[in-house]
Order: sequence, then C-alpha cells, then structure tokens
Amino acid sequence: MSEHISSQFNIELENVRTAVMQMGGMVEKQLTDTLNALLGMQGAELKPVIESDSVINGMEVKIDEECQLIIARRQPAAGDLRLVLTVSRVIVDLERIGDEIKKAALKAHELIDHSRAVASDFYDFNRMCGQTIPMLRRALDAFARIDTSALLELIEADKQLDHDYRSSTRSRVTYMMEDPRTISTSIDLMFMNKAIERVGDHAVNIAEHVVYLAKGIDVRHTSVEVVKEALSDKK
Amino acid sequence: MSEHISSQFNIELENVRTAVMQMGGMVEKQLTDTLNALLGMQGAELKPVIESDSVINGMEVKIDEECQLIIARRQPAAGDLRLVLTVSRVIVDLERIGDEIKKAALKAHELIDHSRAVASDFYDFNRMCGQTIPMLRRALDAFARIDTSALLELIEADKQLDHDYRSSTRSRVTYMMEDPRTISTSIDLMFMNKAIERVGDHAVNIAEHVVYLAKGIDVRHTSVEVVKEALSDKK
Repeated sequence: MSEHISSQFNIELENVRTAVMQMGGMVEKQLTDTLNALLGMQGAELKPVIESDSVINGMEVKIDEECQLIIARRQPAAGDLRLVLTVSRVIVDLERIGDEIKKAALKAHELIDHSRAVASDFYDFNRMCGQTIPMLRRALDAFARIDTSALLELIEADKQLDHDYRSSTRSRVTYMMEDPRTISTSIDLMFMNKAIERVGDHAVNIAEHVVYLAKGIDVRHTSVEVVKEALSDKK
Repeated sequence: MSEHISSQFNIELENVRTAVMQMGGMVEKQLTDTLNALLGMQGAELKPVIESDSVINGMEVKIDEECQLIIARRQPAAGDLRLVLTVSRVIVDLERIGDEIKKAALKAHELIDHSRAVASDFYDFNRMCGQTIPMLRRALDAFARIDTSALLELIEADKQLDHDYRSSTRSRVTYMMEDPRTISTSIDLMFMNKAIERVGDHAVNIAEHVVYLAKGIDVRHTSVEVVKEALSDKK
C-alpha cells in the first residue's frame, strides 16, 4: 500500500484489516466447532455456534461503519480506497458464511435433540464441512497477504464441493425413495448440505475481492478464462 | 440531498440512481416473466429469464465501478457518500434476487421440459412469486423516494412469505410420504420455493438500506423494536 502522510491513517487501515481477520477467525471457529459437535454428536455444542452468529453480525456492522468513517474523513485514493472497499465486500461474505453455518447448526441441533438423525446421517455434511474449513482459511490468508493465486485454487476446490453436494442430494433421494420414513430428516439434511455448499461460494467470492484489491479488476461473474487472463503478468 | 458546487457531480449521482432503478426494473421483469411462464406452463418463456441474469450481473459491476469512481473523484461527504454507499449495497441485493430467480427458473424449465411437473405443482411457488413482486416494487419505490416507511411494511409482508414457505414445505413432505414417486420433483419444487422466499429477504434488505440512506442508521440484524425506534421522530 502507498505511503501516507498521516500515520494515524495507517493505523486506521491496519485496524480494519485486523478486524476482518478477527471476524474471519470467528467464522472459521464456527465451522470447526460445528464439525466437531457433529462428529461427536454433541447437540449442546452447537448452541454457542448458533449464538455466535449475532456477534459476527455485530462485527460486520462495526467494521462497515469504520470503513465509512475512513472514506468520509480520509478520502482515500487508489490502493487505499480499494482496500477499504475490499474490506466492506469481504465482511459481507463473512457474515453470509456465518448465516449459513447458523442455519445448518440450527437444523443439526434439532435433528440431534429430537433423535431424528444418527451420526452417519451427517457423513456428507461433515465431509463437505471439512472441505470448506481449508477453503475459508485459504481465502482469509489470501486477504491477509494480498495473494491473488488463491482464487484459481479455490475455484477448483469449489468445483469438487459442488460435485460432492450434488452427489449427496442424489443419494438422499435414493434413501427417501427406499424408506419414506426418512423423508423429513433427509430434507433437513439436504438444506444443511446446501448451506455448507454455499460457504464454499463465499470463500471463492473473498478470493475474488482480493484480486480486485491487488489488480483493481472486478472478476465477479466472469469465467475461469477471464480470471486467468486477469491474473497473468500482462496486468 | 445537499447542494453541490459541481453540477456534473449532481448528474453523476442522478445517473447511478437511475441505473439502480433500471436494474431493479430488469429484476422485477424477471419475476413477472417467471410467474407468467409458469401460469401458462410455457417452459420456453423461462429461457430469456435465465439469460437475463448475466445482463443483471453486468449492471451490478458497472454501477459498482461508477460508485467507486464517484468516491475516488468527488470525495463525497455526508448524504452524498451515504447515497453512493447505499447504491453499492442495493445493487448487491438486486443481483442476488436475480440469482435466486435464475435458480428457480432453471429448475422450473427442467421440470416442464421433462414433463416432471404439472401446473398445480407450481401453485405454491406462483403464489409466493406473486407476493414478492409487490414487495420488490415497494422496495424500489422506497429507494427512489427515500421513503423509510416501506421497511416495516416489508417486514410484515416477509413474515407472511416465510409462513407460506414453511407451510409449502410441510405440504410437500406429505405428498412425498404419500407417493414416493413425487420425491424428486418435490425436492426441486422445494428449492424453487426456497429461492423465492429468499427474494423477500432481499427486498427487506433494500428497505433497510433506504433507512441507512435517510437516517444514517444501520438497521441490519436488528429487531423490529430497534427499527421502530430508529424510524420514530426522535431521530
């Protein structure tokens, strides 16, 4: 980032970056706590996950206000402005990840609490959850180090996740057909799986924001080819 | 909005507002076209809906770039900055609505194309779609007129939509149990219904952004009581 006359400005920028990393750490913890609770079939351990969503929401609002103050007071330009705008985009995705995890944790809590599911029912969810944890970590790390190389890796990882999600849905349909008594539980599991599949999309979004931060190019809604072009040395 | 020395600046602000209304109009058209296609069971009419999603994505990117340029060049303050930031939030929700409609239209197209659903299968979806059209219109109108009163109305309308969504899910589960051959179609219908339920959430979000624009208060993730307090004359 460019040099600033005001060291106070530097501190403010550094503070929002740190706050994003803290928020990201909270969301990552939500994911790992959910996975651990389900591996141990400990419904009670999902309660703090569900409750932490409001803390994450509060972090989003606070960081967003901080960004607005910086824009209003400091009138940042070029790379600094991009950093502030990137932060305000990344926190939206982090908040949505928090939302998706909460949704999944609520369903899981109910399924376990009412003995409507056994450990093996969560197999697909747990595997996908295990895939999203390194994806989120990679995305946060990319933001911290302004590393554009994460995007293509995450697009690949997300393809695998989407594939696994679709196959989990197909196998659930088979279960339901074979034993209609599993329909109600299966539907809850399918919505849990959908939620965790969405977490992967948001991790990809965060890596897209990092490309915007580094290169000033908006690669949302574009093809892998356009992304590769943008990341090539031509720019 | 405050007076500007630069009339060019005024024109730029007016242009992004107009662009948001155009984008909103496109999304509204997607919704009405989807509803009409399903009422007439015309799968082919869903194709333009699906294709228009990329146009809407392009509009989001373009308006967002416009907002960044205004911030960088004009260094807007107070109400002007809020307007620009509100625009950049509203277009995110409009883009997500476009995504949800596309998802629903894709599933509907496949169901009709493969004769996997009859007109009555779309009854719940169509009713909910019919509820979201005035919700979106109200939200866009609120943005155009900076009318904070839309929020409480939309929160109420969204409650009804959520209620209808839950009851549609319950009735689908009953169908599936009674006739397991309907499972696969029912699951697609449930995801369509989920998509349209999300459209309502985004309409509420837009009305929340309007409150931020008018009052400078962030009412996301808050209770109805906090919203009422914020909208009371005390502020």
